[in-house]
Amino acid sequence: MTAMEGNRPVRVAVAGLGYWGPNLVRNLHEVPTAEPVVVCDLRQDALDAITRRYPAVRGTTSYDEVLADDGVDAVVIATPVSKHHPMAAAALRAGKHVFVEKPLAASSEEAADLIELAGDAGLILMPGHTFLYSPPVMRIKEMIDSGELGEIYFVSTSRVNLGLHQSDVSVAWDLGPHDFSILRYWLGETPSHASALSRGCIMPGTPDVAFINLEFPSGTVAHVELSWLAPSKLRRTTIVGSRKMVVYDDTSSEPVRVFDSGAVLPNPETFGEYKLTYRTGDIVSPHMEAAEPLFRELEDYCAAIQGGSVPRSSSELGLEVVRMIEAVDSSLDANGARMEVAIAERDLV
Amino acid sequence: MTAMEGNRPVRVAVAGLGYWGPNLVRNLHEVPTAEPVVVCDLRQDALDAITRRYPAVRGTTSYDEVLADDGVDAVVIATPVSKHHPMAAAALRAGKHVFVEKPLAASSEEAADLIELAGDAGLILMPGHTFLYSPPVMRIKEMIDSGELGEIYFVSTSRVNLGLHQSDVSVAWDLGPHDFSILRYWLGETPSHASALSRGCIMPGTPDVAFINLEFPSGTVAHVELSWLAPSKLRRTTIVGSRKMVVYDDTSSEPVRVFDSGAVLPNPETFGEYKLTYRTGDIVSPHMEAAEPLFRELEDYCAAIQGGSVPRSSSELGLEVVRMIEAVDSSLDANGARMEVAIAERDLV
Amino acid sequence: MTAMEGNRPVRVAVAGLGYWGPNLVRNLHEVPTAEPVVVCDLRQDALDAITRRYPAVRGTTSYDEVLADDGVDAVVIATPVSKHHPMAAAALRAGKHVFVEKPLAASSEEAADLIELAGDAGLILMPGHTFLYSPPVMRIKEMIDSGELGEIYFVSTSRVNLGLHQSDVSVAWDLGPHDFSILRYWLGETPSHASALSRGCIMPGTPDVAFINLEFPSGTVAHVELSWLAPSKLRRTTIVGSRKMVVYDDTSSEPVRVFDSGAVLPNPETFGEYKLTYRTGDIVSPHMEAAEPLFRELEDYCAAIQGGSVPRSSSELGLEVVRMIEAVDSSLDANGARMEVAIAERDLV
Amino acid sequence: MTAMEGNRPVRVAVAGLGYWGPNLVRNLHEVPTAEPVVVCDLRQDALDAITRRYPAVRGTTSYDEVLADDGVDAVVIATPVSKHHPMAAAALRAGKHVFVEKPLAASSEEAADLIELAGDAGLILMPGHTFLYSPPVMRIKEMIDSGELGEIYFVSTSRVNLGLHQSDVSVAWDLGPHDFSILRYWLGETPSHASALSRGCIMPGTPDVAFINLEFPSGTVAHVELSWLAPSKLRRTTIVGSRKMVVYDDTSSEPVRVFDSGAVLPNPETFGEYKLTYRTGDIVSPHMEAAEPLFRELEDYCAAIQGGSVPRSSSELGLEVVRMIEAVDSSLDANGARMEVAIAERDLV
Repeated sequence: MTAMEGNRPVRVAVAGLGYWGPNLVRNLHEVPTAEPVVVCDLRQDALDAITRRYPAVRGTTSYDEVLADDGVDAVVIATPVSKHHPMAAAALRAGKHVFVEKPLAASSEEAADLIELAGDAGLILMPGHTFLYSPPVMRIKEMIDSGELGEIYFVSTSRVNLGLHQSDVSVAWDLGPHDFSILRYWLGETPSHASALSRGCIMPGTPDVAFINLEFPSGTVAHVELSWLAPSKLRRTTIVGSRKMVVYDDTSSEPVRVFDSGAVLPNPETFGEYKLTYRTGDIVSPHMEAAEPLFRELEDYCAAIQGGSVPRSSSELGLEVVRMIEAVDSSLDANGARMEVAIAERDLV
Repeated sequence: MTAMEGNRPVRVAVAGLGYWGPNLVRNLHEVPTAEPVVVCDLRQDALDAITRRYPAVRGTTSYDEVLADDGVDAVVIATPVSKHHPMAAAALRAGKHVFVEKPLAASSEEAADLIELAGDAGLILMPGHTFLYSPPVMRIKEMIDSGELGEIYFVSTSRVNLGLHQSDVSVAWDLGPHDFSILRYWLGETPSHASALSRGCIMPGTPDVAFINLEFPSGTVAHVELSWLAPSKLRRTTIVGSRKMVVYDDTSSEPVRVFDSGAVLPNPETFGEYKLTYRTGDIVSPHMEAAEPLFRELEDYCAAIQGGSVPRSSSELGLEVVRMIEAVDSSLDANGARMEVAIAERDLV
Repeated sequence: MTAMEGNRPVRVAVAGLGYWGPNLVRNLHEVPTAEPVVVCDLRQDALDAITRRYPAVRGTTSYDEVLADDGVDAVVIATPVSKHHPMAAAALRAGKHVFVEKPLAASSEEAADLIELAGDAGLILMPGHTFLYSPPVMRIKEMIDSGELGEIYFVSTSRVNLGLHQSDVSVAWDLGPHDFSILRYWLGETPSHASALSRGCIMPGTPDVAFINLEFPSGTVAHVELSWLAPSKLRRTTIVGSRKMVVYDDTSSEPVRVFDSGAVLPNPETFGEYKLTYRTGDIVSPHMEAAEPLFRELEDYCAAIQGGSVPRSSSELGLEVVRMIEAVDSSLDANGARMEVAIAERDLV
Repeated sequence: MTAMEGNRPVRVAVAGLGYWGPNLVRNLHEVPTAEPVVVCDLRQDALDAITRRYPAVRGTTSYDEVLADDGVDAVVIATPVSKHHPMAAAALRAGKHVFVEKPLAASSEEAADLIELAGDAGLILMPGHTFLYSPPVMRIKEMIDSGELGEIYFVSTSRVNLGLHQSDVSVAWDLGPHDFSILRYWLGETPSHASALSRGCIMPGTPDVAFINLEFPSGTVAHVELSWLAPSKLRRTTIVGSRKMVVYDDTSSEPVRVFDSGAVLPNPETFGEYKLTYRTGDIVSPHMEAAEPLFRELEDYCAAIQGGSVPRSSSELGLEVVRMIEAVDSSLDANGARMEVAIAERDLV
């Protein structure tokens, strides 16, 4: 992989100024290792709004012009999913590093193609799984890795709200990348099987609620509930380990709560004769430092470009997330049948 | 069906004085139409504890003696599930009305057999699905039936706790009857299909967590999460209807909360071009009268015996609940495959 | 003080079988060092209800008979406040140890008289400040005494509910003993001054809401809000110390929450020039063992009788509590003026 | 009062660009009837930050220049309290309308002087009591005025947090204006008496916690708890009326909760013989429209200037708030004695 020489800031172009793009521009201005130089969108008024606020940033409606610009080291793509592959592929072919909003691409074929292109060119390809940079998610990762939680028995998570339907994708493609990337990061493994039940309540054909079951090779099982239709916002994830249990609620002032509780397995010889006992201990809400995940994520992108490191939100992880969504879609197409999550070819070699 | 003549209280025997039996005895003393006359258990100390408190009640270790007693009109059975069928069948053959704790029996064959026996003898057979008599469940039933909630899109429910493992049954047989009976009562239909994922975290082979997906003929879908392993008690059911949404939490001082919120479908012609809009309105916690569900349930049992009516917790509903659990078990045996819920023979005629 | 010889259980009489009396009888049956022998009430049906449940206990309508009974070592008085002094005094004169429900007496003169009587006779006199035996209150006492909380800056407490008005006493006499006894126990000191604002909202002349300010010799200040008129039950006490802060909520499943937070005083030299900084740390809900405070309290009563020890809920503490209520009444009589809390004579010597 | 002719937007100058000033500038840009033309601060970098973002706004370090500018109709002052009077007085003398952040001035003399100046000149003087424009406060005002809550028995409010100490003022001057202005607005009357207890926990001499009791002429009583030292943010106000009760929590997603509960007064003849009964009904969280209070407040300022109307946050209300704070200070100086709230001279005429 080609690392940039020296400590020069990475000169970044942002393509796509819809809902999320302006946040990316704002954070890029705060990351010391980044220098936002150009923004690109088809709508002139979206460009004007940004360039008025940031006079040092140039606006253009031509993506080709961005790719031809030698003053651009890297692009950040925040367009609808269907545009991810063509725009990222063109950028990689033009020798630019690529950050693309989640999900990485609209299919695993497309995602694998981008990975191959980036590998061949020695360029960074990074999907924007921002939650991997949020302090609660990182803290729980540490607790899992250190063994503090013990064996992870199961994870149950709900991400529901009365929110905007996306007209072009299902709730699994819209909200699923959040939970799937977090699970992949925490557990360090991709599920072997998935099954799902969904319904298009408002628009038949566009699932707006989904109940997804996942099985992991290690034995961990997980349930993911996703919905655009719910009486109140709920972001609740329960992780049950053999030593401790954790509740993670992104909307709470105490986002992580650690329960020192569990079942105590009786002596195997007497097993079945005596009842299990339960241990209930203290509950701790660890203090979380305030840090904007998006800032951290873009910092990681620039560090990867400058140092040739693999970002936490890696392209491989992004591909696994797409495979998980595809397995959910396959299950839904097969009336909820349990489906294998596709295995990467290179894993089979 | 043979109704009892006159207004004489129903003379009741209670068999099984474990955890739940004494509650039944206490409530039978408060129901005006019931007269508890005898309690039966193999353990003499359990009998003594009851007869000391209720000197008018006789104790016996012989169930045969109870069945032979002409002074007993009806039995209440609160023994482990495996004893439900033999004890209930013997009682029906002896001409006694039967109330049996949930689930009605250990298999749908057993349950159907009891229903046939009761039908032939013109006796009441009633499973103890107590939640059907709790004020919040009844209030939500009224809201569904009156159309206040609109079409029921989906139901999502969690019943989890760090609680006692049952050594003889799975979490689906232990906790499932609660949610399955409530869903059957609310929706007035039995699911057509079920699929499930579970794990025996503590005792391999005994599922202590289960994620269950249910599909109903009307289109309603439901998810039921059951667990004996969880950091804190959670009894949360969300009902999402086309008009209103309801959150039911049995542990809260406000067990029912009604959300006057929903998605507003745009004009079909312009569909897809415009975004959906969302309506957010008042939230109401209706006042619930305090009433002991078990008292109401036993009152319903006695009314059915005296008047020949069908109790709300009917034997048919009890059979459907057993069929739902069996479908869950079938799915688990088939690695989570989607299974049909067996259809009653009479429905096929 | 006269300790009882041997390990013989203390033979106890309970006088007053209203709301609280039956709880006392039930717990006395469970305390190994107590033997409830007789219950006394003017209402025969109240006596019958108890003696039916506890055949070994005798019932009587004559308090004189109880006092004359050599088989009675100690009495437990659970009658209206106005009866506390005459009944306790008679018992002490008859050579019986006395436990009397809170508050100890209807005035500090009465309370001091009882203390003198008990002292002269070498008998135990104990007021029933049950909260001093509840695990959360005890845990917080440990944290204060060990210095874990640092200097106690202030305490703010609310005890409100939509509850039964007492027709004979004010909300200060009804609910005040709870918070006043807890504060006296935690802080180990009696306030020097009190001021109060109250209103008789429903019955003019009977305060049903009171806002009470207390100043302690050490510098700690406290606010106590008491009300029979409130939209929902609230039992919330905040203790702010220089090192840590605690929230105690008796109605919560996590009754004690410890906040490792505080203000960090800047260097005195630069004081005023720099802003204070704040430290925010972990929040811990320590596990509380389940223990019935009333059981522990009666156990302490019997231990005091048998061993001559001073019970945690001592008669001195009971007297201080009465003095605090009297200071509140004085302030209310003087339109909310700040009043001194009377100092015990012996403290002046 | 001199109303501005036509519909020309009010040309506004903002003086003071500390914490709050930039919010005022941003909102003035959104109010259609306002045209922010100049900002004034002694710090050039604060001016630059604003003028970079809003190129149409001029920056100056000279307040005199602002007052001499004929292109300025009105000033908005957001400086420390000690500067309120001199800056507002100078502006009024220069013929400018004045909006000044709360509290209106550092003493009631100063506030009264400003009112007189504004009255003489026919100019608008408005203190920035922003909470009067927040939807929950306005909704509760409607409920009180319509009689829905009945007679207001009492109000209890807590505004506490682990927050920044102000080095120049006490917690009563810093946080008190919020609750005092809300109470004045809701109840339509100024308290007759106040008493208070406070402590300077961190900096002796600077009260950082205060417990304030207020008595209103109508009989309503109120308690206000203010603190910069508390384990967690609490903004909880309880309003107890004879018909309904309300809990207002500014930090909640359901900021207003209406409890249809109360005590039912028994028949006066039988009074004292029978116990009170309690009515517990539904709880309603009315939907609140999202509206930025600061926007509404500035809109009201411009409307008053253009139409000569009296703004909701009137200078008279601002003076009453200062009088309430002064009464608290007097009580604190007199060791918590109950003090009269000064009566406006014109009320005595």
